[in-house]
Amino acid sequence: MINKKPLIFISNDDGYQANGIRQLIEMLRPLGQILVMAPDSARSGSSMALTSSVPVKFRKICEEKDLVVFSCSGTPVDCTKLAFHVFFQDEKPDLVVAGINHGDNAAVNVHYSGTMGVTIEGCLKGAPSIAFSSLNKAKDADYSSYTSLVQKLTALVLDKGLPEGVCLNVNFPMTSVHKGVRICRQDKGNWVQEWEKYLQGEGSNSYLIAGDYISNEPSSSDTDRWAIENGYVAITPTTIDMTAYNMMNVLKDWFKE
Amino acid sequence: MINKKPLIFISNDDGYQANGIRQLIEMLRPLGQILVMAPDSARSGSSMALTSSVPVKFRKICEEKDLVVFSCSGTPVDCTKLAFHVFFQDEKPDLVVAGINHGDNAAVNVHYSGTMGVTIEGCLKGAPSIAFSSLNKAKDADYSSYTSLVQKLTALVLDKGLPEGVCLNVNFPMTSVHKGVRICRQDKGNWVQEWEKYLQGEGSNSYLIAGDYISNEPSSSDTDRWAIENGYVAITPTTIDMTAYNMMNVLKDWFKE
Repeated sequence: MINKKPLIFISNDDGYQANGIRQLIEMLRPLGQILVMAPDSARSGSSMALTSSVPVKFRKICEEKDLVVFSCSGTPVDCTKLAFHVFFQDEKPDLVVAGINHGDNAAVNVHYSGTMGVTIEGCLKGAPSIAFSSLNKAKDADYSSYTSLVQKLTALVLDKGLPEGVCLNVNFPMTSVHKGVRICRQDKGNWVQEWEKYLQGEGSNSYLIAGDYISNEPSSSDTDRWAIENGYVAITPTTIDMTAYNMMNVLKDWFKE
Repeated sequence: MINKKPLIFISNDDGYQANGIRQLIEMLRPLGQILVMAPDSARSGSSMALTSSVPVKFRKICEEKDLVVFSCSGTPVDCTKLAFHVFFQDEKPDLVVAGINHGDNAAVNVHYSGTMGVTIEGCLKGAPSIAFSSLNKAKDADYSSYTSLVQKLTALVLDKGLPEGVCLNVNFPMTSVHKGVRICRQDKGNWVQEWEKYLQGEGSNSYLIAGDYISNEPSSSDTDRWAIENGYVAITPTTIDMTAYNMMNVLKDWFKE
């Protein structure tokens, strides 16, 4: 494209009609030209799942100056892969942004999150990538008080880039006012009481997912979970290299002849 | 349970009827009592996806001495979470094992893999967890030459445990004979040409997933991809903590007042 404005790809896991992605688009329109490809319906908990059993389709929803929106029948990662395949063969986007997710993706949720799926996929493809999520999961949540923060961080990443293999997982607290930004590590914790019986009765083997998240380190003030629970914005730099380097020598000893 | 044999949970993403999981069950039966809950059909590329829109059901397929097999309507991670909820409230399994996957999960595939989904979920729940996958994706593949290796590694992990937050991603090469075990790091690379048009013609926006994996470091002999391409078994220790620690100070500088 001849336009010199940064090219920004946006997706999410709540679907293209969700309130969060609409607010994110408006926040980022002043910063560049935007291409959106997002799921045609809610796809929470998609992680980095791919659609391999059926074809994936997309269609144009709207086109305006410096903005085009497509909906897609696939997962968040399908949306990202397909947008790169169809639209970004010649010119990679300057930025991949996911969200704003209605529900936080801090702590172990990084593994289940379709929002982070978009972001990790963007990072795997070599584009600077950011996920925005909020502890406030209300469908009509107003995230507008985070506009200046979203614009500031996005402009910083457009300016400075991110190291190869590193993306950003950003989570907002519940409140519209926040106490500032904390650079965090991923909290250690567990989901408990994860299922509810769908049909009561002894013979029923039908369950609906539920659950509560319990931090194993609730008083560690350097974790993302602590930050959002205490009114701060958490930025967790996230790596796509999952190698546990400090375990390599232990394993080499196990297999020493 | 009163039985002193180790309790081993097995799942996969190819479904409970797949050849790979059947072979894995037979390999591990001498080592303990086994509970299987695996998807009722193939769920490749499930990553750590959860089912949140519909109830998840399971049913018993068979029960023998020290072996019970359930099929489940959910994803690999659903299977793991549901087995822990229903059967492992009082006693955690001594081991979670996933596979044997028909297709490798080395390199960036760790992110898309349902096999690794089971393993990371087991690790999140505090159980020592291992994934076995093979570069040989043939549905009728015979993995029996790996029996002694699977039994040796499984026994080592039962004996020594794994550090908190670390699981093992094991990948076999294509051949039935291997050159030995390599302790590896995750290869850096990309999938390319990821989509094929499902219906030809200019107006078609329907695609099927495809693609080839290209390593960015094909001559680095310490990566998992190199190992399996060169006839070795790759063991990649894998962490559930995705924090990019070396980026934290850079980000703190960005937000310094």
